[in-house]
Amino acid sequence: MIKTRIQHLRALLAENQIDAYIVPTSDFHESEYVGEYFKARKYMSGFTGSAGTLVVTTEEAGLWTDGRYFIQAARQLSDTGITLFKMGEEGVPSIEEFLKDKLPKNGVLGFDGRIINARFGKNLMQKLEAKNISIQYEKDLVDFIWTDRPELSKEPAFLLDIKYSGKASADKLLALRDEMKKKGATVHILTTLDDIAWLFNIRGNDIAYNPVVLSYAVITLDKAYLFVDEDKLSEDIKTQFTTDKIEVKDYLAIYDFVKDISSTEIILLDSKKVNYAIYNNLKSEVKIIDEVNPTVLAKATKNPVEIENLRKAHIKDGVAVTKFMYWLKNNIGKTEITEISASDYLEERRKEQEGFIELSFDTICAYNSNAAMMHYSASPDSHAVLQPEGLLLVDSGGQYYEGTTDITRTVVLGEISNEVKRHFTAVLRSMLNLADARFLHGCIGLNLDILARGPLWEMNLDYKCGTGHGVGYLLNVHEAPNGFRWRKVPERDDGCVLEEGMVTTDEPGVYIEGSHGIRTENELVCHRGEKNEYGQFMYFEHITFAPIDLDAVDTSYMSKTEIKRLNDYHQQVYEKLSPYLTAEECQWLKEYTRAVE
Amino acid sequence: MIKTRIQHLRALLAENQIDAYIVPTSDFHESEYVGEYFKARKYMSGFTGSAGTLVVTTEEAGLWTDGRYFIQAARQLSDTGITLFKMGEEGVPSIEEFLKDKLPKNGVLGFDGRIINARFGKNLMQKLEAKNISIQYEKDLVDFIWTDRPELSKEPAFLLDIKYSGKASADKLLALRDEMKKKGATVHILTTLDDIAWLFNIRGNDIAYNPVVLSYAVITLDKAYLFVDEDKLSEDIKTQFTTDKIEVKDYLAIYDFVKDISSTEIILLDSKKVNYAIYNNLKSEVKIIDEVNPTVLAKATKNPVEIENLRKAHIKDGVAVTKFMYWLKNNIGKTEITEISASDYLEERRKEQEGFIELSFDTICAYNSNAAMMHYSASPDSHAVLQPEGLLLVDSGGQYYEGTTDITRTVVLGEISNEVKRHFTAVLRSMLNLADARFLHGCIGLNLDILARGPLWEMNLDYKCGTGHGVGYLLNVHEAPNGFRWRKVPERDDGCVLEEGMVTTDEPGVYIEGSHGIRTENELVCHRGEKNEYGQFMYFEHITFAPIDLDAVDTSYMSKTEIKRLNDYHQQVYEKLSPYLTAEECQWLKEYTRAVE
Repeated sequence: MIKTRIQHLRALLAENQIDAYIVPTSDFHESEYVGEYFKARKYMSGFTGSAGTLVVTTEEAGLWTDGRYFIQAARQLSDTGITLFKMGEEGVPSIEEFLKDKLPKNGVLGFDGRIINARFGKNLMQKLEAKNISIQYEKDLVDFIWTDRPELSKEPAFLLDIKYSGKASADKLLALRDEMKKKGATVHILTTLDDIAWLFNIRGNDIAYNPVVLSYAVITLDKAYLFVDEDKLSEDIKTQFTTDKIEVKDYLAIYDFVKDISSTEIILLDSKKVNYAIYNNLKSEVKIIDEVNPTVLAKATKNPVEIENLRKAHIKDGVAVTKFMYWLKNNIGKTEITEISASDYLEERRKEQEGFIELSFDTICAYNSNAAMMHYSASPDSHAVLQPEGLLLVDSGGQYYEGTTDITRTVVLGEISNEVKRHFTAVLRSMLNLADARFLHGCIGLNLDILARGPLWEMNLDYKCGTGHGVGYLLNVHEAPNGFRWRKVPERDDGCVLEEGMVTTDEPGVYIEGSHGIRTENELVCHRGEKNEYGQFMYFEHITFAPIDLDAVDTSYMSKTEIKRLNDYHQQVYEKLSPYLTAEECQWLKEYTRAVE
Repeated sequence: MIKTRIQHLRALLAENQIDAYIVPTSDFHESEYVGEYFKARKYMSGFTGSAGTLVVTTEEAGLWTDGRYFIQAARQLSDTGITLFKMGEEGVPSIEEFLKDKLPKNGVLGFDGRIINARFGKNLMQKLEAKNISIQYEKDLVDFIWTDRPELSKEPAFLLDIKYSGKASADKLLALRDEMKKKGATVHILTTLDDIAWLFNIRGNDIAYNPVVLSYAVITLDKAYLFVDEDKLSEDIKTQFTTDKIEVKDYLAIYDFVKDISSTEIILLDSKKVNYAIYNNLKSEVKIIDEVNPTVLAKATKNPVEIENLRKAHIKDGVAVTKFMYWLKNNIGKTEITEISASDYLEERRKEQEGFIELSFDTICAYNSNAAMMHYSASPDSHAVLQPEGLLLVDSGGQYYEGTTDITRTVVLGEISNEVKRHFTAVLRSMLNLADARFLHGCIGLNLDILARGPLWEMNLDYKCGTGHGVGYLLNVHEAPNGFRWRKVPERDDGCVLEEGMVTTDEPGVYIEGSHGIRTENELVCHRGEKNEYGQFMYFEHITFAPIDLDAVDTSYMSKTEIKRLNDYHQQVYEKLSPYLTAEECQWLKEYTRAVE
């Protein structure tokens, strides 16, 4: 099947005089997660991982993916004729190197310019310069092959009331235009879906778990254009847009629209986010200011209304998680519970909460050694049945009108070893230690990360990922530009100065292959503290509330300060959640948030 | 007097058709501290601070300095006709901006090209391009004015035996040439004095406290040239140089020598370190690889012989400091002691140690509120008489054949407040907390700094400097490229990955203006710990040993872990130092290193 598709693509290459064709994993907006319409790389290669790029030449086909997927990709690519290129392994050529080697002089490289970002495309061109390669970016060849391709999402969009957004779109546009003026820009092209949703106070359902609306925006100093399927827009959106002088145009009209932008304009855009087709459709004489979209920082620093709403969302979410933990602890060993039925039970509890819209990502529900695989996903074909022993790691979250949540709790189902307790306690100390940081304004995640990682490093342990990421407000669960990690990762935009109002997860873990995985995750809101001659001090507020399973805590590994942190946190958990629980749940929560010594 | 000198300089400007002249604070080698011959800026301006740049035009004269010196510079520049430019203050032009404004079109800017680094000179040229400014860098005009200028130092140099250096110069040259080859360089120009001293295993006395030899070096793939006053070289240096095929040339012959370097050579140099005159004397066609000198990293990662020697040097140094503390504690209030006589007493104790050469920097001995001024220096005209109350901060160090030391202890002289105890205890916790870090290889100072700063940040306190700096081996007490600080400071090269063998100070402090200053400083050696699937773990070893005054420690502010750290450290102090003390001193040390609870 895959072989036939590749053959078909090669026929199209010949027909279009193209020597090599790239099929990356992306939509038209550089989204982290994409809708069904955009899963072309999966369709063409059969590889289902979340990251990978297919390259097909007249003779060869290769798929590039990273360490997370080497095993899965090798399995899924067998018998397809597609070679697996393990990114980062020694001796493995990069896509650029491969193309430089394989493309003939004066050859033609093809791709759908809408699913490759401008920066990547430009870099590619530079690297292939010596071979005088030309680019054909206007045809989506996969579309000719993929006859039963799903349609572009037509899900309706809704207006986010100011009681949720805290700031009118008109005011956000005003602030954005101030930023444009500061930079000397007259036009701003914005194509990232969460930035657009935030700016126009709209939400939708075009990508699973990410309540965004497929759209592009062009903002000038006196006008704003939104390129979107008008059928999606509710009446109150249309009314609001009329008031705010926001002009709606067809979703795909952007490509011609940008061709007409006068060459005297100065365009602000982020070439890492704007796609190659839009970028190359601009007149070559326009001046471009290539910078991060100003909405990134504005969106990340949640306003007081958003923060007050988030506190409410997190209480609802904590109630759902607590009800789930109560049920799990009291039913394990009595009725059959699987990783999937547990996830479903938790989802039901969330659905009971007022204002719940959908999950914020696919729940990770991983039993014992499954939890040691950081990207584990249970499936109907392959999942564990829970036993009254060991640990269940549950990483989940919800989209509410009052915001987005992301929480991990690891629950004791029965007997656990002393080593597991030691690891669980270390992870708990890590999480609370970072949450309790006091620091000067100017610090970035890199400065604080050791507060979380330190207790594990002391034990010669580590987790091979960041400690935390920014979270949107009824938007993407992974949001730039804030985060915690100890080393800069160039492709992650999460190293900004921590500002008042930013929401970041704090999720250290221990992952022992073949044995167990432990993660405890709260979200933290950053606040300003005292300002004095040394500068502006900052601190965090926990906004996630659910018990941390005391059955796995060994306080002999904790200092008095650490024990106090735990007890203070648990006291808050009880106070905030108990009003929403049944008498039995309340009694259980009281026991599981008791002060320990 | 200063006015006359400036007038004289203006006359020389007119004579040489120069429109503006820069007098920076530097020697020919971009040294942090300079010999007497090089104190031209002080001579011309009357300002004695360690950092500052004088610019004189036909009409105006200005001195640029930083926040440390605003008060002192304002005082010293009054009645000189020189305007103070407070660097970093809003609305204050930079030197480049000033020159751009004041220089006439097609004007001439002058400076002694030997005391401005190539990078700064090139940047200046770029910024002045619009005015078509030309540069006259071949004349040291100050030399015509400064008739009683001290001579260039003629102090003798000596060979550092391999039992101290741990690696023969021939082997260092071999490794350097390997680095040159890796980078594709055929010639390396090295002008930083500590790098040269390290590479050739020579030491001297040309800069106070920095046992370096005024010299330049040019290394090719098969030859090495050292440009140095031959009269300085001992017979065994000459013999060794002959063996190692190191050719000696006149100190100032470098300027003509580099003119003759063939244009086919590929030259490795660091334009931030090589001076403008050398750089501009090169043929314009030579290819330059502008990178940090490979000796910087090689020199910073001390070899096992050096580390073993350093342990010995620090015990000697700790004995001197302990004898001083014993004397101070037992004589305060009985005999008159001043900041100066205390420094002298400490210096005498160091001089008694075998292998002691000189101090490694001017001792900071600061009583009570004087210690709150981080750059305080007692002088015969202005110093405090110590009373049996409050604190004395003593930051000092020595140069020994076995290495360079840098230690700070703050000693209780009598009554102190509870606030002072709280601050002293916080600084102690900070110092020990960083020293006890366990971390993955790849960490830089930025990752670890919060371990020291955290206990102070929790109290809304901070110190406005880095937490620590690299230290040379019988070389400069400030050595690149390692250090601890929480924010990158572009002009400081101290942000490298912490490698095995690096020596870094750990010196947090509390400075309360008008009241008190506390600093506790140990040096730490970085080591490799366990290596496993997570990476290479690293840890530190204390190499500084002297008691931390328990009279100012309030253990109620300390966790059990912190108390254990203190007791473990003090136990080592007693074990290492007691063999070298008198019975009375021993008894005192036993009391002051007792285990606390």
